[in-house]
Amino acid sequence: MPDTRFFEIVGPLTVEQLSEVSGAAIAEGHARDKLVKDVAPLESAGKDDVSFLDNPLYLSALSTSEAGVCIIHPERFKNAPDEMTLLLSENPYLAYAKVAAAFYPEAKPDELCDENSFIHATAEIGQGTHVSAGVVIGANAEIGSQCEIGPNAVIGPGVVIGDECRIGPAATVQYSIIGSKVRLFAGVRIGEAGFGFATGSDGHFTVPQLGRVLIGNNTEIGANTTIDRGSSADTVIGQGCRIDNLVQIGHNVILGDGCIVVSQVGISGSTQLDDFVVVGGQVGFSGHLKIGKGVQIAAQSGVMNDLAAGGKYSGSPAVPMRQWIKQAAMLRSMGKKKANKDG
Amino acid sequence: MPDTRFFEIVGPLTVEQLSEVSGAAIAEGHARDKLVKDVAPLESAGKDDVSFLDNPLYLSALSTSEAGVCIIHPERFKNAPDEMTLLLSENPYLAYAKVAAAFYPEAKPDELCDENSFIHATAEIGQGTHVSAGVVIGANAEIGSQCEIGPNAVIGPGVVIGDECRIGPAATVQYSIIGSKVRLFAGVRIGEAGFGFATGSDGHFTVPQLGRVLIGNNTEIGANTTIDRGSSADTVIGQGCRIDNLVQIGHNVILGDGCIVVSQVGISGSTQLDDFVVVGGQVGFSGHLKIGKGVQIAAQSGVMNDLAAGGKYSGSPAVPMRQWIKQAAMLRSMGKKKANKDG
Amino acid sequence: MPDTRFFEIVGPLTVEQLSEVSGAAIAEGHARDKLVKDVAPLESAGKDDVSFLDNPLYLSALSTSEAGVCIIHPERFKNAPDEMTLLLSENPYLAYAKVAAAFYPEAKPDELCDENSFIHATAEIGQGTHVSAGVVIGANAEIGSQCEIGPNAVIGPGVVIGDECRIGPAATVQYSIIGSKVRLFAGVRIGEAGFGFATGSDGHFTVPQLGRVLIGNNTEIGANTTIDRGSSADTVIGQGCRIDNLVQIGHNVILGDGCIVVSQVGISGSTQLDDFVVVGGQVGFSGHLKIGKGVQIAAQSGVMNDLAAGGKYSGSPAVPMRQWIKQAAMLRSMGKKKANKDG
Repeated sequence: MPDTRFFEIVGPLTVEQLSEVSGAAIAEGHARDKLVKDVAPLESAGKDDVSFLDNPLYLSALSTSEAGVCIIHPERFKNAPDEMTLLLSENPYLAYAKVAAAFYPEAKPDELCDENSFIHATAEIGQGTHVSAGVVIGANAEIGSQCEIGPNAVIGPGVVIGDECRIGPAATVQYSIIGSKVRLFAGVRIGEAGFGFATGSDGHFTVPQLGRVLIGNNTEIGANTTIDRGSSADTVIGQGCRIDNLVQIGHNVILGDGCIVVSQVGISGSTQLDDFVVVGGQVGFSGHLKIGKGVQIAAQSGVMNDLAAGGKYSGSPAVPMRQWIKQAAMLRSMGKKKANKDG
Repeated sequence: MPDTRFFEIVGPLTVEQLSEVSGAAIAEGHARDKLVKDVAPLESAGKDDVSFLDNPLYLSALSTSEAGVCIIHPERFKNAPDEMTLLLSENPYLAYAKVAAAFYPEAKPDELCDENSFIHATAEIGQGTHVSAGVVIGANAEIGSQCEIGPNAVIGPGVVIGDECRIGPAATVQYSIIGSKVRLFAGVRIGEAGFGFATGSDGHFTVPQLGRVLIGNNTEIGANTTIDRGSSADTVIGQGCRIDNLVQIGHNVILGDGCIVVSQVGISGSTQLDDFVVVGGQVGFSGHLKIGKGVQIAAQSGVMNDLAAGGKYSGSPAVPMRQWIKQAAMLRSMGKKKANKDG
Repeated sequence: MPDTRFFEIVGPLTVEQLSEVSGAAIAEGHARDKLVKDVAPLESAGKDDVSFLDNPLYLSALSTSEAGVCIIHPERFKNAPDEMTLLLSENPYLAYAKVAAAFYPEAKPDELCDENSFIHATAEIGQGTHVSAGVVIGANAEIGSQCEIGPNAVIGPGVVIGDECRIGPAATVQYSIIGSKVRLFAGVRIGEAGFGFATGSDGHFTVPQLGRVLIGNNTEIGANTTIDRGSSADTVIGQGCRIDNLVQIGHNVILGDGCIVVSQVGISGSTQLDDFVVVGGQVGFSGHLKIGKGVQIAAQSGVMNDLAAGGKYSGSPAVPMRQWIKQAAMLRSMGKKKANKDG
């Protein structure tokens, strides 16, 4: 059960309500009016809890689980204990996410602008937006309604933020236009000057970075991630992206919609990712590349060339996944042979 | 000599006092009551300073050093100049660390809650704890005694912190239970939501992250490192760990006691490291792995499989160190041969 | 045209003025008194704009550009449309940088110490320096003239900062001596304790870190980058360096002048880079290395040995670039052959 110091639960909810919020169907003949009090993993769930099975690795946990209700794929129906109430979904993890969000809605702030925040007289703050202590908001910034601005965050002059956004503690946002329902986690750095300089005989001369960062609706950006503003064109992050912690995105980069970028990835200047590209952790991209729609790139890869839509790639330099698997197998066998010979 | 703008020294201390704080033995017949004023490296130490020799590479520096006192391994006794007073220790670096800590104790804050900090009325702050300017502490947070909370740090609602902790400037801590004598350096992000979402036909839906971060006593966590809270179970960091800067630790990760994690490592969700695992810089781990006790992993490795206790590994994908050395040697020779042929 | 919410333009400027600020020569017979209103990329520039051509990949954009004025290399003279006014430079990007800086000078702060900043009574703040809201400045800190200290930045006790520096929002600086015209971007962590501990039978014992960070004039350091202070000697960053975001620099590292370090690089303790070393993204260095003057290292390399001046290196472990290209080619062909055989 989540720690009540941090998480406030609503409910109980009936199985029927869970079905409604999640889109999962109640198994035929199962109790629609059963009361459910909380969410829990299969291993620790009790008779008042709802759990879920997504990864088939956990099938054995299902068979011994005491969860009162469980969300599972219709094909797993027979693997569940008889006494378990079942909610059937083609995408049990998605259904569970919606159920958990129903039990634990985001807390609505009950106070508005904290008297200890520093808001420029010309800034506009929308209705229901909560500005925490220590926040600094610059001249002419515009923040929408129902936003939460975390403690010690900094919103620079002229920045525009849409509705229902959550800006984490100690985050800084400058030179940016941000959509609605965007979440920026603690310590993100949006809109700093890009890494641009011209080198002459007496050293490096910084090139003014005159673009912005544009972020689409429903995008989330992880803690301590850095996204530089464009040099003259803009840096653009599409809608519905999920960007993890400690990612670096250079100036003039363009991400399409729905991209997933795992922690510690670095994307060099002017590279473009089309929609729904998935990038594993610690991948690096050279600059000025075009990565096609739906490309998937394995962790720690180094991408030095354009990649065609839909492919899977791995390695540094990155090659098609199938080819990389062979490379890795040969390298492994070479190491073993040599070790045997010498041994 | 350390810059007195930043470091306040106590002393002088006698050789006998140095022996007591460090556990190093005074060499037979050497002066117990000699006064020592400061610590210094072998190269620059003078007759009033204490130095140490740990790495045998510096043996020549020992022979020409003018240090009045030196901590060395008993086996190096003969390498020291005759006029040097010697403290003998099986672990000279550890003994030096304790001597240096005696000369330069952590400054005790002389003022308590800064009038410019923002502390919720329901938060509890222990005796002797110093809260710096710009700090924001949320509702029901509990902070122990003799802690130092650095400027502009943010401690979220409900967070529990033990005694004698040092929270760096601009650090943020949320959804966390933290032991005693823990140090969090500047800009750490503890307890942000993990990278969890379910993907449906209309995009990614964020899964509420309902766990916490638990951190054991005596653990230290480097600047700008991010540790996400658990999804339903907790993210757990054991006692006495040393985690460097810019490390990413995903939700539900478990670290045992005494682990060492060098800078820019990324550990994906639900991976478990047993006690005393040592991880080199920029290593990446896939999710859901089990890494055995005392495993050592070389820098830049990519760990994709469980690793048995006590082994040494390297490479991406990681293989046993011995095998990797062969791989690297063959690759190197292949590159050279081909270069010769073409040349 | 840059977004006027964020960027304030001066002008118009004549072609002659552009020639003066940039050092580019006006092409013979071209209009010296033509008025220019703004900078723009070749693709979108109009008759009142000045653009530039640096990368030959954009030659076709030049031929169709409607830019009124363009800075180009003398050799490209013939590629430009007849009606375009040309400024000729051996280094068009550098000349453009100077022109852009003339149109968009750094805004001078019009208010000085914000009433909402927290400055210790013993700190000294130079003339014309702007201290933003939420800034905390410690005892005996000395900050020069004409500096900009961003919102919620923290300057620790005793820190010295020269003239005309820009410290980004939420940056923290401790135990450091910083030159003039230095820029620290948002969230940098300068001067935290290095990763130093001695391991005994009862765990890790932290070694007091008694050095400082010294940063030379004209150096810029990217967002969320971390530079630890020395253990007893200092960590030193030379003049005119450009360090990107999310870089880690360990204790006692020494960087010469003019070094370029791209994002997410990690440099382990005591490693020394001579002047004008260029390091690609995500490179890792072991500790205690010496890297010669002008060495260039490709992205994602792992440097485990000293590197002689002037060389180019790649790979993990890093080898001479030429050798690495052969290695990569052989690996690629091996992967392909094996794939064919199996296929």
